[in-house]
Amino acid sequence: MNDHYYMKLALNLAMSTNGQTTPNPAVGAVIVKNNQIVGMGAHLKAGEPHAEVHAIRMAGDHAKGATMYVTLEPCCHFGKTPPCADLVIKSGVKRVVIAMADPNPKISGKGIERLQDAGLQVEVGVLNEDASQINQVFTHFIQTGLPFVTLKSAISLDGKIATKEGKSKWITSSEAREDVHYFRHTHDAILVGVNTIIKDNPSLTTRQAGGGKSPVRFILDTNLRTPIDSKIVSDGLVETWIVTGSNVKKEKMDLYKNRNVHFLQMDSPKIEIKTLLKEMATMGITSLFVEGGAEVLGSFLKERAFQQVITYIAPKLIGGRMAPTSFGGEGIAEIHEALELVINEVKKIGSDIRIISKAM
Amino acid sequence: MNDHYYMKLALNLAMSTNGQTTPNPAVGAVIVKNNQIVGMGAHLKAGEPHAEVHAIRMAGDHAKGATMYVTLEPCCHFGKTPPCADLVIKSGVKRVVIAMADPNPKISGKGIERLQDAGLQVEVGVLNEDASQINQVFTHFIQTGLPFVTLKSAISLDGKIATKEGKSKWITSSEAREDVHYFRHTHDAILVGVNTIIKDNPSLTTRQAGGGKSPVRFILDTNLRTPIDSKIVSDGLVETWIVTGSNVKKEKMDLYKNRNVHFLQMDSPKIEIKTLLKEMATMGITSLFVEGGAEVLGSFLKERAFQQVITYIAPKLIGGRMAPTSFGGEGIAEIHEALELVINEVKKIGSDIRIISKAM
Repeated sequence: MNDHYYMKLALNLAMSTNGQTTPNPAVGAVIVKNNQIVGMGAHLKAGEPHAEVHAIRMAGDHAKGATMYVTLEPCCHFGKTPPCADLVIKSGVKRVVIAMADPNPKISGKGIERLQDAGLQVEVGVLNEDASQINQVFTHFIQTGLPFVTLKSAISLDGKIATKEGKSKWITSSEAREDVHYFRHTHDAILVGVNTIIKDNPSLTTRQAGGGKSPVRFILDTNLRTPIDSKIVSDGLVETWIVTGSNVKKEKMDLYKNRNVHFLQMDSPKIEIKTLLKEMATMGITSLFVEGGAEVLGSFLKERAFQQVITYIAPKLIGGRMAPTSFGGEGIAEIHEALELVINEVKKIGSDIRIISKAM
Repeated sequence: MNDHYYMKLALNLAMSTNGQTTPNPAVGAVIVKNNQIVGMGAHLKAGEPHAEVHAIRMAGDHAKGATMYVTLEPCCHFGKTPPCADLVIKSGVKRVVIAMADPNPKISGKGIERLQDAGLQVEVGVLNEDASQINQVFTHFIQTGLPFVTLKSAISLDGKIATKEGKSKWITSSEAREDVHYFRHTHDAILVGVNTIIKDNPSLTTRQAGGGKSPVRFILDTNLRTPIDSKIVSDGLVETWIVTGSNVKKEKMDLYKNRNVHFLQMDSPKIEIKTLLKEMATMGITSLFVEGGAEVLGSFLKERAFQQVITYIAPKLIGGRMAPTSFGGEGIAEIHEALELVINEVKKIGSDIRIISKAM
């Protein structure tokens, strides 16, 4: 068994908690002595012990002289919990293998330094790419102060999201639609435009087999047209925000007073996407899942305000020169203005294909 | 080494001649004795020897007591060449492994029978699916009397084929555009609409590294608007047909008299796709590659007149509610009317993805 083997396990531990540690990163740790695993742990929830603490507790005296694998550089500062670097040193571990350094430029490398100063052997970068992928939301948030934004769309093989009559149920398979709920579970917030609320009256909750955490709901609704009897306003299942422009009158908002909904009014008549993202960040939202419709996706595209694009493609042909497509807005004039992405993963989901791409 | 191993080689031999044997199928044969390959062959061109003949010639006396692997049932009738089944029997081969039976319902199984009657051991169905794939054009043509039709499109991740201004150069990578030429090489004919000719003035020839066979060119041009000075009319590189409706006057066609172009005038004012395909079949065209534009693809979709769809998807976002998409026409009203396909292959080509789907 080599370093990759144990780090892979630590990464699996981290990945399993994806979505429940926010605003903290998902982290896993494994302690190994004489090729026997003596401790394992993952950070479960902000405010609770870090991965290293759980693993060291499990290992007890066996930590002495052992190797620790941890997916993120151990912290060296007092937050809600004491610094892990000190605990690792105290535990007697003699070698620490780290997948990636802390992405926070202010503290990156300081935990590593403290371990080295105490005489521990430290290696950094084992399965670095996998760890970066798992921590993409945390890294983006810590480095930019803005939520990590994922745009989701589901299209036919000829790029349509509905027929010319606007019928869209269902283009993708049930497996693909269930898959979407995993991403709702792992994002802090979800956002749709008011037209989607009016047309589909969705609940936007996470309904996957075995349950899941539902994201905070946001509706982009410049002129406040969200129907008062829509599910999202009345079901009270999740914290819900209606985002409006500055022209909406207080009296109109008051009509929603006894409903389970908050208002976020922008300073400008139109909603500026980047200003909204800053607002979300102050609310502690580190990741946002944008489910459409086409005009909303077009706005995020125009502002280049996203990091990831998830596209489900169903092997169906709809046809029709007037059938709508996934990204609306004005659009560009020249091909060289198109936003180029990098494909990260292509996977079959049911009878459909899921493409995950990243902004460069 | 087992049957799969040798049949795979025979299939590779067949595949390498894909596109050059029309209207015959591509067939490969391998003869094996004591785990030594003693003969190999492929059918190269209609009118020339079949695969079995080449392999038996190479094997000579070594064929006695050997096993022959052949991707298609040996023929038992006199065509341009004598029946292969008789030659196989005469060669002394004692066992014949066949990937697929002849798809022609009139003669299917008769070659196998003749081999069995002569006391040879015959096995049918080894790597049957791969062989069916290689022979899909031949099988379709022999069973329906119509060319096998492939629809090709290239879209952005948001389903666009151009910007709102109609700019489309280039959405896909150079690798994907080169890949298209392989399909031109392997199809008997290519078809585009007159709008593509007017807008892009393409040559529609096969220009891949190392060269390739260019397909016969067809332009769907109901009212005869093809510019007389367009490349396709004047370059004389390949046999070229302009397909018109019945309303086009002879005098108008006469204007093209000294050009390298033939006319195919339909009996109806509009071009009926299925009638056109029947006409093509009488011209010996067994496969047709339809490259667009959107209205032409929409017509083939409406008529359900295709067997295969090749979609290149570039990881770019174009946006724009008015940007055009790959399949036009009127389109359907309800999702259940959408044409469902089955995905056959998903492959990365350069920075793009190629999806090959089949009509069910």
